[in-house]
Amino acid sequence: MTMYEIINKKKRSQPLSKEEIDFFIDGYTSGEIPDYQASALLMAICLNGFSSAETYALTMAMMNSGDTVKLPLDGITADKHSTGGVGDKTTLIVAPIVASNGVYMPKMSGRGLGHTGGTIDKLESIPNFKTELTDEEFLSTVKECGFAVISQSGCLCPADKKLYALRDSTATVDSIPLIASSVMSKKLATGADCIVLDVKYGSGAFMKTLSEAETLAKTMVDIGKSAGRACRAVITDMNAPLGRAIGNSLEIIEAFELLKGNIPHESRLYQVCIALAANILETAGKGSYAHCEALAENAVTSGLALNSLKKMIVAQGGDVRVADDYSLFPQAAQKREVRSAKAGYISGINSEECGLISMNLGGGRRKKSDNIDFSAGIILKKTVGEHVDEGNIVAELYTNSGDLDSAEKRLLAAISFSERRVDIPSVVAEIYR
Amino acid sequence: MTMYEIINKKKRSQPLSKEEIDFFIDGYTSGEIPDYQASALLMAICLNGFSSAETYALTMAMMNSGDTVKLPLDGITADKHSTGGVGDKTTLIVAPIVASNGVYMPKMSGRGLGHTGGTIDKLESIPNFKTELTDEEFLSTVKECGFAVISQSGCLCPADKKLYALRDSTATVDSIPLIASSVMSKKLATGADCIVLDVKYGSGAFMKTLSEAETLAKTMVDIGKSAGRACRAVITDMNAPLGRAIGNSLEIIEAFELLKGNIPHESRLYQVCIALAANILETAGKGSYAHCEALAENAVTSGLALNSLKKMIVAQGGDVRVADDYSLFPQAAQKREVRSAKAGYISGINSEECGLISMNLGGGRRKKSDNIDFSAGIILKKTVGEHVDEGNIVAELYTNSGDLDSAEKRLLAAISFSERRVDIPSVVAEIYR
Repeated sequence: MTMYEIINKKKRSQPLSKEEIDFFIDGYTSGEIPDYQASALLMAICLNGFSSAETYALTMAMMNSGDTVKLPLDGITADKHSTGGVGDKTTLIVAPIVASNGVYMPKMSGRGLGHTGGTIDKLESIPNFKTELTDEEFLSTVKECGFAVISQSGCLCPADKKLYALRDSTATVDSIPLIASSVMSKKLATGADCIVLDVKYGSGAFMKTLSEAETLAKTMVDIGKSAGRACRAVITDMNAPLGRAIGNSLEIIEAFELLKGNIPHESRLYQVCIALAANILETAGKGSYAHCEALAENAVTSGLALNSLKKMIVAQGGDVRVADDYSLFPQAAQKREVRSAKAGYISGINSEECGLISMNLGGGRRKKSDNIDFSAGIILKKTVGEHVDEGNIVAELYTNSGDLDSAEKRLLAAISFSERRVDIPSVVAEIYR
Repeated sequence: MTMYEIINKKKRSQPLSKEEIDFFIDGYTSGEIPDYQASALLMAICLNGFSSAETYALTMAMMNSGDTVKLPLDGITADKHSTGGVGDKTTLIVAPIVASNGVYMPKMSGRGLGHTGGTIDKLESIPNFKTELTDEEFLSTVKECGFAVISQSGCLCPADKKLYALRDSTATVDSIPLIASSVMSKKLATGADCIVLDVKYGSGAFMKTLSEAETLAKTMVDIGKSAGRACRAVITDMNAPLGRAIGNSLEIIEAFELLKGNIPHESRLYQVCIALAANILETAGKGSYAHCEALAENAVTSGLALNSLKKMIVAQGGDVRVADDYSLFPQAAQKREVRSAKAGYISGINSEECGLISMNLGGGRRKKSDNIDFSAGIILKKTVGEHVDEGNIVAELYTNSGDLDSAEKRLLAAISFSERRVDIPSVVAEIYR
């Protein structure tokens, strides 16, 4: 077996065997197979496709390339994953809701890059919050609080880490089998019994259309089920940012507000969070979907989820006083109110643009080595479906060193208006079981 | 402009501009663009194709990546190229025929690899023959003899050299636009006014079918014409080796025999040589095709072409006595007569197998650094269309250190028999003008 023959087979659209996929992943992880052969194979996979058997074999090979984590917990564990959105702070809301209902969520999260944010960066905006815990600290926090959020271990799926960097520089990212195996290898390596995926579609997502999102959801759920996990996907709309806050501390504040009951139940953020939590609880065997929805809502109204989040912040060393005094977060030196030059109903807000504006204000990273300004970002004062008069404040921008003029201009251009009232599609498009 | 965007465009089947192709070739030649990005693009080109405009731009960019040679000669210059065959000694016959008719052929040739031989290796079987000449020696030899054959300069098309090595290890060799641009960049760099291509199809060729060979021929001829050269292609059958000799000194001897008039005009080798020479002479303006055919045949019957070849051997330092005393060539220590175990008409001889057998006997290279045994190879005593009785000698094998038993077995297996007389298709299948 040689890498040349493997590339040549896929180039000719022939299926690769489990042994060939293992040979590739083992050789690439160890460095015996060079980048230039791997990138040729990746491009052939992008263009000629990968069957579900091949995608499953790739996922398992990447999972087995490094450590697998299985915390010794005396109950059901769950994990969620979002395919990357703008303003997506759902982990900070869903994990405490789920934990309050007796399902463990030991979470490993990533950092943000480009227009998408990362849960780890958001949490680090809380003074003294530690995202790197020892194995013992991680376990004890999960036991005590029902959940914990740490940054991803270097030994988890090293093959995926190396391949992802290569895909990122060879235009081979947007392949459904490659995306699905990358996500699922990490999810499976963390050993959760139940996995719920939030697959986004729309302007701010990798998947631009609902149909692509459906294919990705199906591919990932099939992998999860093949690996013997309870798995499902919630397909959600990312044609507008999720919630009103984009930026690290701004999003933590919005999560607190939701858990305090201060965000309307018809808001898109609330609906996505309850749908994700209810799906996790249902797959964890907590009853019917309707019952699990009620359990999720009760965790918010009772204040139990808020308490769970606060407890976790304390356990991970963070200054929990921020929950009640937002002025303890790092504050931006500059604020700009953005006023609309137009009137009408907001029909759309380009979420990728919002992510990039927030990044330029300091809230995100252009490249991995960039530092983050935790206070920077956007608060949308108006969102999709709402009416705006000329001169109304549509957003507030926060930054320490970003270019506010340019951000204001881009933000106004990212908002689309309609003269008539618009029907905004439900944020939860589908549940793939 | 970034390499990422260029890969991404081709991945999405979008056409690349001349500027983008120049950016790729310049950056790859200088080392700024890494192998792993180049191989991803090559695979995308293999699978999504390259238009004729893109293929032409790639050819010109590779041609311009290094030196171009234009010898100061006071007449028309011609070049020929074969897409790689087994037993193909046509350069050694065609060049002296063409030169005898007043058309210059300053040729740069390659070495053999795998089952295909190289003109440079064949010439080096002549004692003391020099294939590396200074620019002055090259020019003076061409002026004096009408032609010269030297090994390819290192500064000619460095981009092609680097890309070819990468294609060879990433299963991206068999793409018609990539093959065509690789061949034509080198042909155009050597500055010939007329270019005639010998495009092979069949078991021993890159192109397995006539239709693939036609596409390659058309692609290459179109590039040549776009670059302002007189260009055409002769499509020839490589379902059997060309001629009866395979191996370096054995092929030189066969070339002498043809030029001495000792090889029948109906033989496949004679027909291909005359067709190539006549096409070169016609494109060089020497009259109608029929007239040029007569000119080519006269060069053989008059002995002028043989004299031209002898003169060139002297000019390049070789021991010209080999022309009249073949025992002055290196001699093989072992010879094996191979007798047929079957009777019937020979319907085919797998030429790729013959090339590999000759390689294993020492006549070729498995890898670039291998040494060649100039005396090793095969003489086919019977060829396609001929009748064989059981026990007839079908071939002779020559070697110093090869495994004759294995070679004999493989050779017999490479010959197909038919009970009835078989129609052998004409060796010259088509001429693409």
